[in-house]
Amino acid sequence: MTELRTLKVALLGCGNVGAQVARILIEDADTLAARTGAKLELSGIAVRNVHTKRDVDLPQELLTTDADTLVKDADLVIELMGGIEPARTLILSALRNGACVVTGNKALLAQDGPILHEEADKAGVQLSYEAAVAGAIPILRPIRDSLAGDRITRVLGIVNGTTNFILDQMDTTGAQFADALAEAQRLGYAEADPTADVEGHDAAAKAAILASLSFHTRFALENVHCEGISSVTAADIAAAKDAGFVIKLLAIAEKLPAAGTDTGTEADGGDGVSVRVHPTLLPREHPLAAVHGAFNAVFIEAENAGELMFYGQGAGGTPTASAVLGDLVSAARSLVLGGPGRTETTTGHVPALPIDAAVTSYYIGLDVADQPGVLARIAQLFAEHGVSIEIMRQTIHRDAESNVESAELRIVTHRASEAALAATVEAVKGLDVINSVTSVLRVEGV
Amino acid sequence: MTELRTLKVALLGCGNVGAQVARILIEDADTLAARTGAKLELSGIAVRNVHTKRDVDLPQELLTTDADTLVKDADLVIELMGGIEPARTLILSALRNGACVVTGNKALLAQDGPILHEEADKAGVQLSYEAAVAGAIPILRPIRDSLAGDRITRVLGIVNGTTNFILDQMDTTGAQFADALAEAQRLGYAEADPTADVEGHDAAAKAAILASLSFHTRFALENVHCEGISSVTAADIAAAKDAGFVIKLLAIAEKLPAAGTDTGTEADGGDGVSVRVHPTLLPREHPLAAVHGAFNAVFIEAENAGELMFYGQGAGGTPTASAVLGDLVSAARSLVLGGPGRTETTTGHVPALPIDAAVTSYYIGLDVADQPGVLARIAQLFAEHGVSIEIMRQTIHRDAESNVESAELRIVTHRASEAALAATVEAVKGLDVINSVTSVLRVEGV
Repeated sequence: MTELRTLKVALLGCGNVGAQVARILIEDADTLAARTGAKLELSGIAVRNVHTKRDVDLPQELLTTDADTLVKDADLVIELMGGIEPARTLILSALRNGACVVTGNKALLAQDGPILHEEADKAGVQLSYEAAVAGAIPILRPIRDSLAGDRITRVLGIVNGTTNFILDQMDTTGAQFADALAEAQRLGYAEADPTADVEGHDAAAKAAILASLSFHTRFALENVHCEGISSVTAADIAAAKDAGFVIKLLAIAEKLPAAGTDTGTEADGGDGVSVRVHPTLLPREHPLAAVHGAFNAVFIEAENAGELMFYGQGAGGTPTASAVLGDLVSAARSLVLGGPGRTETTTGHVPALPIDAAVTSYYIGLDVADQPGVLARIAQLFAEHGVSIEIMRQTIHRDAESNVESAELRIVTHRASEAALAATVEAVKGLDVINSVTSVLRVEGV
Repeated sequence: MTELRTLKVALLGCGNVGAQVARILIEDADTLAARTGAKLELSGIAVRNVHTKRDVDLPQELLTTDADTLVKDADLVIELMGGIEPARTLILSALRNGACVVTGNKALLAQDGPILHEEADKAGVQLSYEAAVAGAIPILRPIRDSLAGDRITRVLGIVNGTTNFILDQMDTTGAQFADALAEAQRLGYAEADPTADVEGHDAAAKAAILASLSFHTRFALENVHCEGISSVTAADIAAAKDAGFVIKLLAIAEKLPAAGTDTGTEADGGDGVSVRVHPTLLPREHPLAAVHGAFNAVFIEAENAGELMFYGQGAGGTPTASAVLGDLVSAARSLVLGGPGRTETTTGHVPALPIDAAVTSYYIGLDVADQPGVLARIAQLFAEHGVSIEIMRQTIHRDAESNVESAELRIVTHRASEAALAATVEAVKGLDVINSVTSVLRVEGV
């Protein structure tokens, strides 16, 4: 056997995922060498404190607080520190040194993706980040490479396990949001400060990355409309269930045609892309509806391929490490075989659309007066605003004690723009027969 | 804008998939150029008869019967003729000329994969075949690249749409096999001669390809144990349904540890790989159980990534063309950017195991005499053969007219080797209290 070339691997960060990556690099060294054609030598692990107790037993001499020196000497750099700085500076320095970089840093990518890609292209090295979206699920590479000859029209992703666990709990047990969140925290699915997950910020960063790769245009976090799940109530879930739907927090990126045309005709994306994160009703028979617990899945619609779904574990040290190692092996192969560093194509230049331009179906719950003619007046108002109603259902409740009747009206619309829907809801609120608008939720997959 | 290099694309075959590939190459030329950095020029389409009427309107001057000349002059060759010859000779000739080859020819790959790969490696060009397994679903590239740093332990695939449609029909409507097959033929999901699909030959070729990539070792068709679905009865389906299972034709490739050990310890695959295709019971809550109609899905278990599933359309001209185009764009990029041609790693050299060595759970249906002590005798016999019973359920039927009672016994075992199970079933048949063994089916996902 010929002597294998050695590639030095610097690991930045040794948390949940980093520790597993280090373990695998050490334990599976022979397998990884066979797969890449090079010896992958873990040259060091940059940490904040070398004495911190870790889940995995790692050689103490690999730990260092001097990330700068580690990066300078590396052929491959794995960044798993998270946050913007010092991750950003270290990655840029690595790329400028000609090292390939593997990262799972969705926040940094959503903010500074363009700069990082530019440096990688300039240096002719790979910048890859499969671990940044949907953990272990191979999704970015299939979008970038396997679907490179197709045109993606829509991406719907369950990309945050915490919120999927909470919504699934609420759906299964009828729990309120606060109780389901507490349960998620107890089981380790949610952090003590759950804001980034439950308010959709984590999903929004992933939506920006998915949209950028799917539509060959760089979208940043500021292009993503974001609503979390903290306002979703047990009553919303129950009403959705009753109507045959499940509520999921979806990251959505979809191509929308120019107003007044049916389909986009321009190469790479019609006239704009709507990128958004919000609680969404899905029919229970939709493939994404069967994604339970903390699992993730990404559903893709493409012009030629049709419907595709990718399902798996979206978080966790070991599963996410699998994605990191896949990127590392590819990057190492490119160094061994002299392959290209180009990691994405950005030839579309399609604009990000504001949320008002998004087009979807809606579910609207109304508490209305039980009078003759109410349904007709509401239907009339929807029609005047150009919002077409698909389903309208009224349920009469009679309070046993007071004998007072109240009526609940549930409406599912056909596809309409956010702007038209908002105007409709405003107008509905002004009707004297309306007691309150109990919920307005978007619907996909119908 | 700088002048783009032109790459000549030769298309061999213009059937269902080929015609769509040609259409997309012509219609989406600008998009494909933007994605690859080169102009992809369709230089010709080799067909048997240039006057055959086709679904897609293609420029007549592109059609030729002279495949040899077309291949000689091409940078990229797409082979969609199917069958062994002349496809084999043309692909080898293309590779020797330094052209990248994209093919969907599973039969050829399952038979001659090693030779084709050897030629591609020698020439330093890409040989890719995403379209050969599970149509539009990106599955081979994720296995090869995304999971390159992980160890796959098991692959379960619904990779034949025809048989999935038939079994799904039988499950939904209670139809017998022959009626469901006739319905599939009427709808165009099954061919006039359905042998290759219903006897599992098509799935077996795909199993060989999946196993080769998953376990980094070349497996051929002869390494695949193959049973089709023509013997699956409506009664089997009903009994499975009653027990909470669904019957699917699965292509299975799994790593098995050495006898007497719990897990394999060798790099890349333990002590052997069992590759097989057969009707299989799956619990109804398994993700693969929800794959309906002619859809395909591949479920993968990997040491680090855990469970993954890839779902989409497994056949059809346009969806399959998406996979072909994805491979074509990657191959073209490698020519433009000077990337590596290496397409797989085969470093495992794990042996293919005979079907006797396969280890799984089993469902056994028995028609038994309704006598005291029968259950105990059968249970004793299973125990003597080292096959552990998980569930045993007896149902007594009384014929209303004759008043004769018969008993049906349904057994689900724990995991056992095929050899142990076969010996057990033989012994059971010899018992005087057994009227007949009504079914023996394998179970996965429990």
